[in-house]
Amino acid sequence: FRQYQPFRHRDTYIRVSLPAVCFVWQIAMVVLFGVFIRYNEESDAHWPEYKKKQNITSDAENDFYYRYPSFQDVHVMIFVGFGFLMTFLKRYSFGGVGFNFLIAAFGLQWALLMQGWFHSLDYNTGKIYIGIENLINADFCCAGCLIAYGALLGKVSPVQLLVVTLFGITLFAVEEYIILNLLHCRDAGGSMVIHAFGGYYGLAISWVLYRQNLNQSKHLQGSVYHSDVFAMIGTLFLWMFWPSFNSAIANHGDGQHRAAINTYVALASSVLTAVAVSSLSHRTGKLDMVHIQNATLAGGVAMGASAEFMITPYGALIVGFCCGIISTFGFVVVTPFLERKLKLQDTCGIHNLHAVPGMLGGFISAIVAAAATESVYSKEGLVSTLGLEGKFANRSPGTQGGYQAAGTCVAIAFGLVGGAIVGFILKIPIWGDPADDNCFDDEVYWEVPEDEETIHPVLEYNNHMTHKQQDITESNFTLEQS
Amino acid sequence: FRQYQPFRHRDTYIRVSLPAVCFVWQIAMVVLFGVFIRYNEESDAHWPEYKKKQNITSDAENDFYYRYPSFQDVHVMIFVGFGFLMTFLKRYSFGGVGFNFLIAAFGLQWALLMQGWFHSLDYNTGKIYIGIENLINADFCCAGCLIAYGALLGKVSPVQLLVVTLFGITLFAVEEYIILNLLHCRDAGGSMVIHAFGGYYGLAISWVLYRQNLNQSKHLQGSVYHSDVFAMIGTLFLWMFWPSFNSAIANHGDGQHRAAINTYVALASSVLTAVAVSSLSHRTGKLDMVHIQNATLAGGVAMGASAEFMITPYGALIVGFCCGIISTFGFVVVTPFLERKLKLQDTCGIHNLHAVPGMLGGFISAIVAAAATESVYSKEGLVSTLGLEGKFANRSPGTQGGYQAAGTCVAIAFGLVGGAIVGFILKIPIWGDPADDNCFDDEVYWEVPEDEETIHPVLEYNNHMTHKQQDITESNFTLEQS
Amino acid sequence: FRQYQPFRHRDTYIRVSLPAVCFVWQIAMVVLFGVFIRYNEESDAHWPEYKKKQNITSDAENDFYYRYPSFQDVHVMIFVGFGFLMTFLKRYSFGGVGFNFLIAAFGLQWALLMQGWFHSLDYNTGKIYIGIENLINADFCCAGCLIAYGALLGKVSPVQLLVVTLFGITLFAVEEYIILNLLHCRDAGGSMVIHAFGGYYGLAISWVLYRQNLNQSKHLQGSVYHSDVFAMIGTLFLWMFWPSFNSAIANHGDGQHRAAINTYVALASSVLTAVAVSSLSHRTGKLDMVHIQNATLAGGVAMGASAEFMITPYGALIVGFCCGIISTFGFVVVTPFLERKLKLQDTCGIHNLHAVPGMLGGFISAIVAAAATESVYSKEGLVSTLGLEGKFANRSPGTQGGYQAAGTCVAIAFGLVGGAIVGFILKIPIWGDPADDNCFDDEVYWEVPEDEETIHPVLEYNNHMTHKQQDITESNFTLEQS
Repeated sequence: FRQYQPFRHRDTYIRVSLPAVCFVWQIAMVVLFGVFIRYNEESDAHWPEYKKKQNITSDAENDFYYRYPSFQDVHVMIFVGFGFLMTFLKRYSFGGVGFNFLIAAFGLQWALLMQGWFHSLDYNTGKIYIGIENLINADFCCAGCLIAYGALLGKVSPVQLLVVTLFGITLFAVEEYIILNLLHCRDAGGSMVIHAFGGYYGLAISWVLYRQNLNQSKHLQGSVYHSDVFAMIGTLFLWMFWPSFNSAIANHGDGQHRAAINTYVALASSVLTAVAVSSLSHRTGKLDMVHIQNATLAGGVAMGASAEFMITPYGALIVGFCCGIISTFGFVVVTPFLERKLKLQDTCGIHNLHAVPGMLGGFISAIVAAAATESVYSKEGLVSTLGLEGKFANRSPGTQGGYQAAGTCVAIAFGLVGGAIVGFILKIPIWGDPADDNCFDDEVYWEVPEDEETIHPVLEYNNHMTHKQQDITESNFTLEQS
Repeated sequence: FRQYQPFRHRDTYIRVSLPAVCFVWQIAMVVLFGVFIRYNEESDAHWPEYKKKQNITSDAENDFYYRYPSFQDVHVMIFVGFGFLMTFLKRYSFGGVGFNFLIAAFGLQWALLMQGWFHSLDYNTGKIYIGIENLINADFCCAGCLIAYGALLGKVSPVQLLVVTLFGITLFAVEEYIILNLLHCRDAGGSMVIHAFGGYYGLAISWVLYRQNLNQSKHLQGSVYHSDVFAMIGTLFLWMFWPSFNSAIANHGDGQHRAAINTYVALASSVLTAVAVSSLSHRTGKLDMVHIQNATLAGGVAMGASAEFMITPYGALIVGFCCGIISTFGFVVVTPFLERKLKLQDTCGIHNLHAVPGMLGGFISAIVAAAATESVYSKEGLVSTLGLEGKFANRSPGTQGGYQAAGTCVAIAFGLVGGAIVGFILKIPIWGDPADDNCFDDEVYWEVPEDEETIHPVLEYNNHMTHKQQDITESNFTLEQS
Repeated sequence: FRQYQPFRHRDTYIRVSLPAVCFVWQIAMVVLFGVFIRYNEESDAHWPEYKKKQNITSDAENDFYYRYPSFQDVHVMIFVGFGFLMTFLKRYSFGGVGFNFLIAAFGLQWALLMQGWFHSLDYNTGKIYIGIENLINADFCCAGCLIAYGALLGKVSPVQLLVVTLFGITLFAVEEYIILNLLHCRDAGGSMVIHAFGGYYGLAISWVLYRQNLNQSKHLQGSVYHSDVFAMIGTLFLWMFWPSFNSAIANHGDGQHRAAINTYVALASSVLTAVAVSSLSHRTGKLDMVHIQNATLAGGVAMGASAEFMITPYGALIVGFCCGIISTFGFVVVTPFLERKLKLQDTCGIHNLHAVPGMLGGFISAIVAAAATESVYSKEGLVSTLGLEGKFANRSPGTQGGYQAAGTCVAIAFGLVGGAIVGFILKIPIWGDPADDNCFDDEVYWEVPEDEETIHPVLEYNNHMTHKQQDITESNFTLEQS
């Protein structure tokens, strides 16, 4: 009986590696934070002095009040949204929500440092000064790794996940620096830097870690009724708060306002086309929870890079319309195809929800940016929305469009190459990952409680009887045959 | 065995109708948005110019920052609140949360247009200019249809729900225009325009769609332990965010502030009286989850129309006190009575949670408005709170009270008449609705995963044995009797 | 069979006492609110006048906009966070989330009054003037009682819980007045006034109510798979919104900003050390859901009192680091020890999550306050952060540190002494509490729905068969033996 000897082929003992990684890492974080991280002028106790010096009349001008509500929404998306979306497997809900929690808590600290070095480092003092926007960006950075986790769900050990996160955050910070600072792309909601990168990063890792005999765990690779309802908690919190995700670090005023509106309508549109294609793909038109849980979100992913742009509400509707179809089609056709032909096992289907819509979002932003005109944006609006300031002041919208497309390619390349390398690192047999016939099972890394049957003493009694019965039945068998 | 032949009497094939409606509708939305909908001055890239022209000194004055946190709370209420409240049935959780999602995503687009034509249309350009307040109102508009869904839960097809939503949103926009613009009622939290309308709309539809043999589905019309816990997620998010619901479109400053306080205390009061009556209604004082899930919210519904008024905190407590009692009493006595005598099947008991408290809320607002005095409100406060400006400047508080009562009646009338008509449309046998013995079952419209029993191979083995056993038992039977 | 005669030794009839307490209490609240509670100048309709008089130029200066988003987050923590955290027991989820709801709705009204008398009473008019900050404080006040409920979960009747709440809120308001006003401690996130007080209050009550034969309910004192997933909803909402909890009533501007950052990083750090110690404490390194659900939050508790201080981000990391370890260690070693040696039954382990980290948080704040210097805080920052104004203007940071430590001791003393007294009151045998062999069971106070087995008629048929089978088996038994 499998559950009494769950570790058949591989050693999933992580009592040394997991605590060691956590402790070493956390101590390193304390030291690095001590050396580098300080409050910025808006979160430091010198704020009253700073306010006077800058002629700021109201505390309401502190960036905290512009961004904190969006920050909290993003925070919910990272921990409850991604976490519960991954509880859909019948016996991997602990791992889905629990390891998601671990990855994000681990990753956000490293993200504060990595992104800080690239974006918030003061070269005079050698310090990183952080405020609310850094927290949002750290959460964003974790999102990339959580997307990658979606492809690996149920097939890796927590220690491997920390390795994925460590490299993921590092790669993220570098590609983000190249895309946002060097190429000077605009990507408020992270279609390229988060979703395209995270998606292809996860897919590449999963491709390298291909498991020949995964069908031996097939009986656990599916949902039960209530695990699908749990996953809807994740879906809905992602769906509802996506306008905050795409507007969280947009420009104050019209930028945040427009990003929220665009995302809101794009998402609504995705729901309808996802439902339509889901129904079309079943013999009698029944809906599939997998599509409702995932493809309804595709519009939000694809709106990311152009959320702040004057894409117009109907433009946003069209984006959602197409991505809802493409994403559902991906779940019905492409994922099975990839698994069969490309040997690519993608547990959550991140190819359809993040990789492809993220890539599309990048290219859409290229088109929308290239089509920007001064009459639509106003002179000042064009400069601030496309960021054509400083040394980029002479860039035309058309050129900006080209760079947006280039940025998308950079994100994909980083994801694929980085993922492949990390995949090979994870193949070293020291990480305590489960055997092929032991995947998608919380028993491996969690103390799982006894089953529902033991709730009532009566039922326990019945169970007891059942075992007895079985013995009896077997003897009856003999009786009958004799 | 029912589950292998689930479509006994009626054809629930929706593979043509559901995708067709979704696609046609979504394309229509794209076209209509393209013709009509644009960003308003606060979400348009011309905002920096506008700011200068209007002498606005800070981006914090953008309405986005006044209303976005409340908008997100309302959004959570619509999708998670209403959605999870309807997961309480043992085998209709997918339909509860999934169709809720579909209705709202479908409805909010149409609401942006319908409400836009009535409230935000610029007659010079022929365009609707939208901002954050439009998004909140679109969500409100959906709430009316979701309330109606509560009465129909488990008994209609998704195509029928889209018809209910299409007409519901349309009727909503018209009655709202009559009540808020022509009668010039105040209804910040929508006691009349949302709850009374939505409640009676759903009841009228359900009354027309009466199912004689619904008791054939009786075994599925109830909860199981965990479905009741899921429903509590819905209840709590509705309960917690109701202060945001009632204050979301209230006046800036004291208006929003007061609406939140009034709703907060009214809801607290409802909880205690709902618990008291629930306990009283059981032989040994046990509580009933149905009451806790629903009647605790009645105070929020009833506070809607007078949330912004100077009802005083103890006034709000009294409102919650009475509505908690009335609503619980409704669940214990009125709903069974309506079903038996009036042939009115109301799955979620919206009569007790929305229809009656909404109506009461309208009349309460009439009394509170009529009692308003300049000494309590201040001159300026009275004008802005009761909206006695422009052509309504000469209206006295007493007259305003009369109009509040009239508005409540208009909302109920629209609900009843509109619902009856929509009900008859839904009786046309083309919508793929389930048979009487096939209600409250996700199997009809969803691919439902296998049951919990199959989690462990061991258990599968046991199941296998059980079937064998049964055969054996039967032969034993013969053996014994022989 | 237990479930057909669930009240063996004690009378759990609460049909008189529960409704009576709720009604009497709610009527008392209406009367007291009528006498005492009014809107403050920011929520009163006179706000436009007040604004002019005070030269306030923008509605954005209304405190509502500074604090409402944080208030809503705190509200979610109280109702969903604490509520779902307590759903982890296999058959006490209704009681966990439902009684939590009742306690908080009951408590917040009394808290508005008690805290109002101490903090917001105008001695000229004899009225309490309330605004958004009072609502946050009322929620905080409830948190103390909900923490205490954690120790009592499953072992008390709802009437007893209302008694615990009534005294708990009263004690809270007094100790808070002593600590914040007389000793003039700083405690933005309530490490001392909420967590240390609430923790020791609950422990003292539970110690007095020791149940000798509680092991007779042992079969229900544990989780099942899905109840652990429900509990993660609670954990995550507490974890995510803790930055709002600790910053909700901090100073505008840098105060709130810094409190949020400090809490964010402390919590991340707790997750890693909790995971590490949890893994270490299991033979093969498996994680325990109890630790993930609870100990990950310890950093937030301990950061409470010094959230607003310039503890620096790495200081916050160290706080989270230590508390994650201490808290997990508590669950592994201390709680079983306390139960065995001190006869202290602590269902949720509040000793490890609230009592000890709260106490530590108080002492940490003493150290951080004592170490405060003008160069780190700026002159103005030091005054506003440590509150060294008015009659406390001459207090040095060192002295303030001493008072912080004294405040922590006061909170613990109030908790222990108050809890012991309340415990003896609860021993009076009139409250309808369950017998020792009847604990942790929703059947006692809730109408619990039938079990999952009855979902499909087929299964019902099977069940039916099983009973028949059993009879047969028994006769077979005879047959075989004969």
